Amino acid sequence: MIEFFYDINSPYSYLAATQVEALAKRTASPLRFRPFLLGGVFKQAGNDAPARIPNKARWMLGDLARWAAIYDVPFRFPSVFPLNSLHAQRALVALDRSVGEEAQRGLALALYRAYWVDDRDLSTREAVLEIAAARGLDVAALSSAMDAPETKDALRAATDEAVQRGAFGAPSLFVGDALFWGNDRLPLLEAHLRALGGA
Amino acid sequence: MIEFFYDINSPYSYLAATQVEALAKRTASPLRFRPFLLGGVFKQAGNDAPARIPNKARWMLGDLARWAAIYDVPFRFPSVFPLNSLHAQRALVALDRSVGEEAQRGLALALYRAYWVDDRDLSTREAVLEIAAARGLDVAALSSAMDAPETKDALRAATDEAVQRGAFGAPSLFVGDALFWGNDRLPLLEAHLRALGGA
Repeated sequence: MIEFFYDINSPYSYLAATQVEALAKRTASPLRFRPFLLGGVFKQAGNDAPARIPNKARWMLGDLARWAAIYDVPFRFPSVFPLNSLHAQRALVALDRSVGEEAQRGLALALYRAYWVDDRDLSTREAVLEIAAARGLDVAALSSAMDAPETKDALRAATDEAVQRGAFGAPSLFVGDALFWGNDRLPLLEAHLRALGGA
Repeated sequence: MIEFFYDINSPYSYLAATQVEALAKRTASPLRFRPFLLGGVFKQAGNDAPARIPNKARWMLGDLARWAAIYDVPFRFPSVFPLNSLHAQRALVALDRSVGEEAQRGLALALYRAYWVDDRDLSTREAVLEIAAARGLDVAALSSAMDAPETKDALRAATDEAVQRGAFGAPSLFVGDALFWGNDRLPLLEAHLRALGGA
């Protein structure tokens, strides 16, 4: 089982999200998308957003473009960055709890495309719900579930759990105790799964 | 031309150093090893050593072991870490200036093995000179060159130059203006060189 902890505001999580389903299929591994709050992870783990370092932010622009070219996926750096992803992550958790993982994953991929391809500012509840509406989801129910204490608690709990298991950034992919951090570790994750006999 | 900026105290630079010569050969690219001072890079770029974050330090241990297995190179995490590499980096710069790049590179690979395989503490001048002596180098001349103001200036200049060109960590590999940061970006560096028509 691959647990894919992600936040919509993380560009390398977007890139990984475009690849991880095919990887799971190739290795016959169950896959679970798990929304968490990257800001909370940074805070708890004592880490900082990589783009806070000017030279790293500049390098990231080129690096992200190179990965997008390798994967042949669209990518445009958003006008609004960093993104406050609290509404997005709450919507994802709420949907996961009310409808299920598949619906959550579908919304995640739609939000990723909206933010990292179509340059939509997803910092407001309305913007997130628009993307959900376009997928035919029950927006009134989703909006109300986003405010439920159970949703807020579940998002906090997923964030805490990831940090307790060793996360310090995103994406964080777990196979049991083994953590694979970053889009660039997908090949190592795949080799690990094959060594476990998953394929 | 690949410029490989490195510090002996960086584990991912050690891993990259075991691979970059073969990569340069495969792509028919000239290669230049360039010692710099990683502590100075961190300071100037506003970055911090990754191992300062406890979860990241734990993850790195497993990640480094995975890379060493993939590359089939020996690796043992040193007892003394982090390493004050000032004497090592000065010796490398001094040798580069007095004998040449090939001698510098040979000493770098020997120091990497001493520190990242044989667990030798290289924080003292004596320890660095012992490794140099085992390579048949003129240790008296090297020791005196390590203290020359020109050596200290050249190490500072290489560090400043790397940061001005965009570096924020190690290894930093440049092909002209393009920076490839980290052992894990060697495949992207290779693809870049092939696209340039280097092979």
